[in-house]
Amino acid sequence: MKLGLFGYGTIGRGVYSLVENIKKKYNLEMKKVFDLPTKKEILGDKLVTDINDIIFDEEIETVVEALGGHDVPYQVISGCLKKGKNVITSNKEVVSMHLEEFLDIAHKNNCSFLFEASVGGGIPIIRSLIDNTKINEVNDIYGIVNGTTNYILTKMSDENLSFEEALELAKKNGFAEANPTADLEGLDGVRKINILSSLAYQGNISNDDIYHYGITGIDKNILELVKKEGYVLKFVASSHRNGNNCIIRVEPTMVPFGHPLSAVTNEFNAIMFTGSTNAELSFYGKGAGSIPTASAIIADLVSIVEKRSYIEYKNANKLVVNKQDINPNEYYVIDRTGKAKFESNVTDEHLQAAKFYARVIK
Amino acid sequence: MKLGLFGYGTIGRGVYSLVENIKKKYNLEMKKVFDLPTKKEILGDKLVTDINDIIFDEEIETVVEALGGHDVPYQVISGCLKKGKNVITSNKEVVSMHLEEFLDIAHKNNCSFLFEASVGGGIPIIRSLIDNTKINEVNDIYGIVNGTTNYILTKMSDENLSFEEALELAKKNGFAEANPTADLEGLDGVRKINILSSLAYQGNISNDDIYHYGITGIDKNILELVKKEGYVLKFVASSHRNGNNCIIRVEPTMVPFGHPLSAVTNEFNAIMFTGSTNAELSFYGKGAGSIPTASAIIADLVSIVEKRSYIEYKNANKLVVNKQDINPNEYYVIDRTGKAKFESNVTDEHLQAAKFYARVIK
Repeated sequence: MKLGLFGYGTIGRGVYSLVENIKKKYNLEMKKVFDLPTKKEILGDKLVTDINDIIFDEEIETVVEALGGHDVPYQVISGCLKKGKNVITSNKEVVSMHLEEFLDIAHKNNCSFLFEASVGGGIPIIRSLIDNTKINEVNDIYGIVNGTTNYILTKMSDENLSFEEALELAKKNGFAEANPTADLEGLDGVRKINILSSLAYQGNISNDDIYHYGITGIDKNILELVKKEGYVLKFVASSHRNGNNCIIRVEPTMVPFGHPLSAVTNEFNAIMFTGSTNAELSFYGKGAGSIPTASAIIADLVSIVEKRSYIEYKNANKLVVNKQDINPNEYYVIDRTGKAKFESNVTDEHLQAAKFYARVIK
Repeated sequence: MKLGLFGYGTIGRGVYSLVENIKKKYNLEMKKVFDLPTKKEILGDKLVTDINDIIFDEEIETVVEALGGHDVPYQVISGCLKKGKNVITSNKEVVSMHLEEFLDIAHKNNCSFLFEASVGGGIPIIRSLIDNTKINEVNDIYGIVNGTTNYILTKMSDENLSFEEALELAKKNGFAEANPTADLEGLDGVRKINILSSLAYQGNISNDDIYHYGITGIDKNILELVKKEGYVLKFVASSHRNGNNCIIRVEPTMVPFGHPLSAVTNEFNAIMFTGSTNAELSFYGKGAGSIPTASAIIADLVSIVEKRSYIEYKNANKLVVNKQDINPNEYYVIDRTGKAKFESNVTDEHLQAAKFYARVIK
């Protein structure tokens, strides 16, 4: 099978080298790589600088999109699927915005669209979730889906660093991007929990309908207080469905010591979901990094080669994502005067007016 | 697709009812169920009391073996595979003893042999492990694979019960069998870590070559001592490969507070493995029970219906399972006089001569 690769950055390079490892076993050939002309020296004749050189190459059956961003990836993915090429991506932004559309085009053109690497890095969460939706209902999903913020919170809590020091360390060690806003404010988490929820509930969800509140500027004293109450602070994405109604949130969350999420530290991710017939399942692993992410892309590639592509098109359920007036969860709220207390039945406005708040889970 | 079911006990009933839920969606029909004549009233005309009524029924394409034990299941599985029927089982005893033979017969007769439910109940560990062996090397596997003993150790540690009280409670709540020897002595763990290791290392392993040491009769005082040292006692199965050499063990193990395994309580299981390209992955969920186990069987059934059966035949590697003279791990050893200390470079004979010992992990 002849392959095309879009993007020769951190993830693209990982994909390229892992394909080298397995190309004999699976009879693969990386025919073309799209990137900037500056990559000519490394990539030689394989380099193409026009996306259409891959999209319209009839020999290429499967492509990997590893560009990042939105506009070009959108053109690449929809263009390739329309030409009947299988597409694999780790791009959570594009997937979360156009999932239904992409699955629809793939279905009409008899090819596969796979995106295991878009959530949880090397953790096989998407295929496990889809396998489960085939045999039971999944109505609850939650977890730590952002490695950058988990790394920062861990370093602050365990090594008593300030937020700024922990962020600096994350950047230095490659766990935070130069502009970490999407991570810190929860937008990355929104995209990931959107993808998981859309698959589990088989419906369309807009990122705009997902509540999110970030962790920027949390100070050490707050983490101390949280610890004294018997909890660890985590940045948790959660999703719950009841009929066609869902509530999906990404927010600072207090996890009691001994809870499985409390042991998820540094850049690791953990995702739990509950199926109606097999109780809670939980998955844990490195949520980011070139090789774990590339490894998930290669797992998708092997599924395609072995004709075991696992996502089928489903008619979308009509879902209503609620932004509730009164929040049903319990919260720990520190007001502007520094007074801390546990509160129930509060509004998001009330929470956001506080100096700090975190959802409390048992 | 017409189905046959062997055994209408706890797991068989779960399978039967879950097939009812999805039979329309996947066009399935449970044609015959093998069990004792006493089940006539419940099963009516579906009941057969001779295994050959299913094995030689040309209409039945796929069977589920849910009998338990060894001899009849062995006949059922090999008989059905030889007739080209797909076989799904949760029987760890038979799978751990005849895995290579069954995969070989399935390969020759162009049908599938799947056994996700044999390890970790509803946790999709086998398909995740196999997906990983396709793209990288897995040389380390460890985890808590027995729900009964984890339940007992949790109740002793958290509720200060004696071993006998905790065992009684486990029986009362359906987490221990009337004869729990295979669980308590580690034989159940041996079978499960054998299956995982055989798949990961693609070679034949005899249960007899796996070291195991049980938890029978551990007393409360020992758990207190362990806790004071900053650890939780767990019953851990571990497997490591280096080239063609492996060391596979099931033994009491001290896990430090904060380690992911320390948060695995009651009847839950957790299994970790490390792939060469995606770092450590961990899977957590209910390791036993009728519905989680039946749910894993149904997931295998859906894979077969969708022609995504995920296990291929592989020529076996020649593996040597070492029973090492000098154990490379660190141990916590309480001698006959009650004196406790941490020791390295000890023999298994030395360990077994102690009043209590546990491997120590970091």
